[in-house]
Amino acid sequence: MEEEETERVDLILTGAVVATANDDFDLYENGAVAVRGDEIVAVGPAAEIAERYEAAETVACGGRLVMPGIINTHTHVPMTLLRGLANDRRLDVWLMGYMMPVEREFVNPEFCVLGTQLACAEMIRSGVTCFVDMYYYEKDIARATAEAGMRALCGQTILKFPSPDAASYEDALGYTREFIKEWQGHPLIAPAIAPHAPYTSTPEMLRACIDLATEFGVPIHTHFAETKLEVEESLQNYGMRVVPWVEQHGLFEAKVLAAHCVHIDEDEMRTMQRYGAGVLHCPSSNLKLGSGIAPVAAMLAHDLNVGIGTDGPASNNNLNMMEETHLAAMLAKGATNDPTVLPARQVFAMMTRKGAQAIHMDHLTGALEPGKRADLIVVDLSALHNWPPFTAEPDAVYAQLIYSAQAGDVTDVMCNGRWLMRDRALLTLDEEAVRAAALALAAKIDAFVIAREEDLFSKLVAIGGLEREESYEIQVKGRLPRPDVIADLLRHEDINIVHRSHYRQYDTYFLFDDPDMGRIRLREDAFINEDFQVTRVRARLTFTEPGERQALPDTVMLSRARFMAPADRSRRFYREYFRPNREYEIHKERRRWHVDYKGERIYVNLDTVTKPAIAGTFLEIKSRTWSRHDAERKVKLISEMLDILGVSRDQLFLEEYIDFIPDHPEE
Amino acid sequence: MEEEETERVDLILTGAVVATANDDFDLYENGAVAVRGDEIVAVGPAAEIAERYEAAETVACGGRLVMPGIINTHTHVPMTLLRGLANDRRLDVWLMGYMMPVEREFVNPEFCVLGTQLACAEMIRSGVTCFVDMYYYEKDIARATAEAGMRALCGQTILKFPSPDAASYEDALGYTREFIKEWQGHPLIAPAIAPHAPYTSTPEMLRACIDLATEFGVPIHTHFAETKLEVEESLQNYGMRVVPWVEQHGLFEAKVLAAHCVHIDEDEMRTMQRYGAGVLHCPSSNLKLGSGIAPVAAMLAHDLNVGIGTDGPASNNNLNMMEETHLAAMLAKGATNDPTVLPARQVFAMMTRKGAQAIHMDHLTGALEPGKRADLIVVDLSALHNWPPFTAEPDAVYAQLIYSAQAGDVTDVMCNGRWLMRDRALLTLDEEAVRAAALALAAKIDAFVIAREEDLFSKLVAIGGLEREESYEIQVKGRLPRPDVIADLLRHEDINIVHRSHYRQYDTYFLFDDPDMGRIRLREDAFINEDFQVTRVRARLTFTEPGERQALPDTVMLSRARFMAPADRSRRFYREYFRPNREYEIHKERRRWHVDYKGERIYVNLDTVTKPAIAGTFLEIKSRTWSRHDAERKVKLISEMLDILGVSRDQLFLEEYIDFIPDHPEE
Repeated sequence: MEEEETERVDLILTGAVVATANDDFDLYENGAVAVRGDEIVAVGPAAEIAERYEAAETVACGGRLVMPGIINTHTHVPMTLLRGLANDRRLDVWLMGYMMPVEREFVNPEFCVLGTQLACAEMIRSGVTCFVDMYYYEKDIARATAEAGMRALCGQTILKFPSPDAASYEDALGYTREFIKEWQGHPLIAPAIAPHAPYTSTPEMLRACIDLATEFGVPIHTHFAETKLEVEESLQNYGMRVVPWVEQHGLFEAKVLAAHCVHIDEDEMRTMQRYGAGVLHCPSSNLKLGSGIAPVAAMLAHDLNVGIGTDGPASNNNLNMMEETHLAAMLAKGATNDPTVLPARQVFAMMTRKGAQAIHMDHLTGALEPGKRADLIVVDLSALHNWPPFTAEPDAVYAQLIYSAQAGDVTDVMCNGRWLMRDRALLTLDEEAVRAAALALAAKIDAFVIAREEDLFSKLVAIGGLEREESYEIQVKGRLPRPDVIADLLRHEDINIVHRSHYRQYDTYFLFDDPDMGRIRLREDAFINEDFQVTRVRARLTFTEPGERQALPDTVMLSRARFMAPADRSRRFYREYFRPNREYEIHKERRRWHVDYKGERIYVNLDTVTKPAIAGTFLEIKSRTWSRHDAERKVKLISEMLDILGVSRDQLFLEEYIDFIPDHPEE
Repeated sequence: MEEEETERVDLILTGAVVATANDDFDLYENGAVAVRGDEIVAVGPAAEIAERYEAAETVACGGRLVMPGIINTHTHVPMTLLRGLANDRRLDVWLMGYMMPVEREFVNPEFCVLGTQLACAEMIRSGVTCFVDMYYYEKDIARATAEAGMRALCGQTILKFPSPDAASYEDALGYTREFIKEWQGHPLIAPAIAPHAPYTSTPEMLRACIDLATEFGVPIHTHFAETKLEVEESLQNYGMRVVPWVEQHGLFEAKVLAAHCVHIDEDEMRTMQRYGAGVLHCPSSNLKLGSGIAPVAAMLAHDLNVGIGTDGPASNNNLNMMEETHLAAMLAKGATNDPTVLPARQVFAMMTRKGAQAIHMDHLTGALEPGKRADLIVVDLSALHNWPPFTAEPDAVYAQLIYSAQAGDVTDVMCNGRWLMRDRALLTLDEEAVRAAALALAAKIDAFVIAREEDLFSKLVAIGGLEREESYEIQVKGRLPRPDVIADLLRHEDINIVHRSHYRQYDTYFLFDDPDMGRIRLREDAFINEDFQVTRVRARLTFTEPGERQALPDTVMLSRARFMAPADRSRRFYREYFRPNREYEIHKERRRWHVDYKGERIYVNLDTVTKPAIAGTFLEIKSRTWSRHDAERKVKLISEMLDILGVSRDQLFLEEYIDFIPDHPEE
């Protein structure tokens, strides 16, 4: 051996099992890593490193595992502050009924900073050194992340509808441009543009994102094909699946990283592979929200770069990448009935070098090799749940890490050459202050949600679309002795028919045990033409407050105060969102005339109740009203109309159908 | 309030969130539990308990969660000592290639005691107070468990073939009878009979198990329908699925608890429900071994008692019930595309009261209610990954436990009124001694596996069935100038044809880079009749040791030493078990004659090589030999036969087909 001069470095980690995740997956049983500044200088057998380098500090690892820092390739970090707020609900109810309303109320720069701090603390504890984010106010998220010392690709969300930080997508793009200029070139933060998903984008919006991305050379972070519904709607609207649609709109002109890809086919995999797009696989979130199981084994067979992500902590419910990689390994085997797919070393690659490739950051991180940034962690594999160790299999250490180890086994974390955790103590974050602030905010969110849950009106407002108009009506209702008496009214000289319609009305009542809650009616109308063909369908929600019913002279009533909104979601959504104690359906066939009688607009309905089936034909005469005086005048007119029809007052009743029908559940 | 006299108890846990898992799932935000001896005396609001009871010791829980001890409903505890030994392999390779050979070598009472101690330590750390086992030497497992202070249902394995602790099932039954007598009535241990699975039982064996179970009133613990293959074979062999078959054989005369049930249909669910049989759901193991995803949501809809189990740590690879319940919740949602199934509180029930019902131990454990044994745990839900807490949803604490919490959050564990862990310190086990002993044993197992892996002969022996005979042959091989010259030989006056056959021979060679390894040939012969119909198929393995080839005078060779075994498993099995570096196939069509020539049995083969396709017809003349002297005599006879055929010596070659074929991978 010739004499060599030793080179000076800042730090040597030695006496470790070093899993490099380099091209050859070199593994050193008694290995060492030399670090200078933010950079890895050398990796190799401990003796060799000791011979070649002299270090200001040497850390003896006592046989622990040293490996690249874990990469969480997809998350929404501030959502730590919504963790566990709503569970066991379908994606639309969870997202539109809970996450978005709460976000509209609470998300601001301070929320994002605090949520990021909580997330960074949790992720550092579980061995993550780098993550990919998508949220609002990414400038603040970037700042909090850089202060915590972590590496991140921060994707500023862009949506075709208003968001907490932008009234329009143009505003969001403007913010994103500033954000990129401010942070591009930072040693820890890489800015990215995050059009949320194809179905929340317009082609123009996507085009603007692509142009911005190519102008600055930053990647685009988005969601693809998370649910089957998304693919079905893409097929229906555009005649093609998600990946061909975004390809047609030029998305792959930019570097792309796409979360989920639960429902992509082999052709879409080939397309993504051809463009070098990364897949961010989030198994927990896909399971928890019932989205399905991504075909990861097939993706890897197509040589796609697949990383693993936790998704936001609100749909996970943690940021535990050890749990996530464990799940990724297990799930792929179970889903394909093939225990040989995603073997431990391949999953280790996904949490390190392959993850870095998927997010276009493999020039910086994901492997322990000279020239890469010093992003590394120390893992103690000696806990009971990892015991005893076997060495017969060459991949034994990877199997321990993937199949047995827990996040709590991570003891030390370094990012960019800086220690973020030593001996399980966080060095860059004030854990107690963050916890206290999060607790205080959670109490406010709790109060908001509780108040809303107790009040159907607020719940309606929270999901948007409510027309805050109130509608007061006077109404008379009765059984007609013979249906054809209606003809007498309609041909009367004082009556002018303005409009006529014929529809089947399907009412679903959501009823609550608490009498103060009021009730929600989902009304779906199917309009029928002269050939009894359905020509159009319309759905509306009505919220009726309790206790506003008033009797007027001549048995005409002033109806309850009501609030209406178009119902653009499914009955199932409303059921799961409002969670009624009981549900009741009334179907009727209605012929309806808008008439003018002595200068007032009056509505005449002729109804047959088909569910529950009730014999006979019912008459309703209604008019809108605005004042007591106006109501009294209209009552008089309606009374005259009843006389024309020859309907006696004892055939009338005050109740609405749901209150009148004998087997109605409130009876 | 009337004055009441306070009652004396041993211990009050107070200031806790108490999740009772009783009939009404009562939850006390500031609750307490009173314990006397091994029994829970009262559960309720802290103030109420303080008023009614006076305790020798009061433990303030500081707002932590107190809940019933977790029940691990299916495992094989001593397999902690095989944890992580073999991974990413198919069930048959993993079980028959690794687990069973190592068990045959190492499992004895000491192994079982040590493995149980390691398992108990790990399980206590993750909040388990009760488990259900199935293994060998259950007397020793019961003893180690009772010493560790845990509750267990211990199922003594019974198999139709020899096992580490019994040469026959009759021996196993005798052992089991003794085991039951010895342990029945113990405060912690409940003995059970564990016929391993329907496919490893005979009807007589099952009958004997049922009779023993009903004689002593102990339950039967078994595996049902773990793989699709098991169901397919049941349908093929018995014309019915697994559950109807065991029903027909009377299994449900006993109390049954059945692990896995991955592939049972709705009718089988109804049958199991009718008999009150418990299902032991093991999601990790089912995924890791590629067995599939059990239809748990449907089982619960059928009102089956479903508990959750880790299965043995060798197929998991840990005994972490927090991870397992988390997975059970997530997986059921993903598999059904319905995030509303298995909501958090239901999964909480599965880990406690429903688990206890599934294992027929709900009279003792699974809920915090007066009269039940004091099996309880304290969980700290304040770690970062659980933070912040929300209370808006009534099930929030269950959601934290199921979706965010980690095994390491368990701080204290009590079983049968005795503390097993306080402040994360184990009280009944010497953790360091167990770890050291396990490490020493693992080194021996490693050495055994490594030696075996380096030696194909040992690997062949390990999976059984090898005929340990050695076969030496002399052989001559050559290209025939014209195929019909064979007729000259067969009609020769000194030749007596004893037997003739015609078959297609498909050889798969498993080749290794290491020249010392030798090679494995899987030979599959399809015998053909005069109409070229395949009449019979036979498969054999041949192991050829390296370097035994010898040239003899007259270009006849003494072949390599070879070992043969019938090949009763698939090519896929052997490929995954032997893990060759390369694989090569040779197909030939062979006509074969057994002839007697001058008193010696000689084999004459006329071969056409079809894969790779080689022009011409090849002749082989072979004979078995036992000594140098015998070989020389037979060489002379074969030489005479070559003369009869008119084959010149320069048409012969020494190599076997695989060595001779030009594009053979070793060239």
